[in-house]
Amino acid sequence: MGKGEETRQHILGRAARVASRMGLEGLTIGGLAEELELSKSGLFAHFQSKEALQVETLRFSARLFIDRVVRPAMKAPRGEPRVRALFERWLDWARADPLGGGCLFVAAATELDDREGPVRDDLVRQQKDWLEFIAGVVRSARDEGHFHPKLDPEQFAQDLYGVMLAAHHARRLLRDPRAEERAERAFDALVRAARGPVARPAKARAS
Amino acid sequence: MGKGEETRQHILGRAARVASRMGLEGLTIGGLAEELELSKSGLFAHFQSKEALQVETLRFSARLFIDRVVRPAMKAPRGEPRVRALFERWLDWARADPLGGGCLFVAAATELDDREGPVRDDLVRQQKDWLEFIAGVVRSARDEGHFHPKLDPEQFAQDLYGVMLAAHHARRLLRDPRAEERAERAFDALVRAARGPVARPAKARAS
Repeated sequence: MGKGEETRQHILGRAARVASRMGLEGLTIGGLAEELELSKSGLFAHFQSKEALQVETLRFSARLFIDRVVRPAMKAPRGEPRVRALFERWLDWARADPLGGGCLFVAAATELDDREGPVRDDLVRQQKDWLEFIAGVVRSARDEGHFHPKLDPEQFAQDLYGVMLAAHHARRLLRDPRAEERAERAFDALVRAARGPVARPAKARAS
Repeated sequence: MGKGEETRQHILGRAARVASRMGLEGLTIGGLAEELELSKSGLFAHFQSKEALQVETLRFSARLFIDRVVRPAMKAPRGEPRVRALFERWLDWARADPLGGGCLFVAAATELDDREGPVRDDLVRQQKDWLEFIAGVVRSARDEGHFHPKLDPEQFAQDLYGVMLAAHHARRLLRDPRAEERAERAFDALVRAARGPVARPAKARAS
């Protein structure tokens, strides 16, 4: 990584932390330059517009999420164990709050749902990729025979997203100490239902 | 309702629509005065600060939600039918989008989760009331024998909130035409699980 690229990553890391706290709209080149003790023109050399900075910040955060959640989870065996690893890593990510101000994607989703433009388009593409990725891992679990043949993977993906959103709401806004424990129980219930009427223990099949 | 109160309700109705689109932070006395073609000082006579305006806007929206969702649902018979009525009215509310810019409470939750102060406190109180209300309706369904005796009503409330949040995300951000259908299926699955291992048809018991 060259010096220019290193600076750029350093800027994006800070930008992601600011956006996690203040939302993407709270992210301005002027404000960020001040926080980083850089000149505005120096920052402009890296990002030509507020929108470009916002898009790059979202992408930076998505790469971090992939490194911390997706890649490690993919090391788990295909099928139900991998679905569970995905959930557990995701919950770890939320618990660790690596950007320091709650989930940037949740904040961006409500900020951008009514605002057309390239930043929204990028976020939508990311979120669709993520839901499709979850559905794909669930589809494998179905194909491995861990989940019921009639299970709808897109349904499971939306349901799992709901479990995470509710936990985020309960923990971040309501500061409910039982938020995560309930998310774990909700996930267990989803998995039990996904196995279908006859329980198929995953461990025996995954080994 | 006196003339002063009528004006106040008119202002709050508009404020709720603005906040639904722009978030509570997008709600300023100056901006709202312009939209309503009122003087800033006229608006100040009703709301002495931006914070007071934000709190009153949240309360106005909560009253609307109670009128449109809670009150009609309470006319359904106690137990599972009332839990279902609550869900259906809530989904109708989300579908009708009465404030025109998506759920104000969802937007406010991510805006305020890191910002201490009276507006956050008010939102937290509202949201806790709402979750406790759901849990109470679920508890009745358990006491009526429609749901399993070991069902945890607070767990159900968080799970149901998740179903709604995921549907909001899928519909508003991703514009997924299947968002609501999936919410309905997720709700059905929650209810099936709530009945416990032995299915107890609610209709027979509720009649």
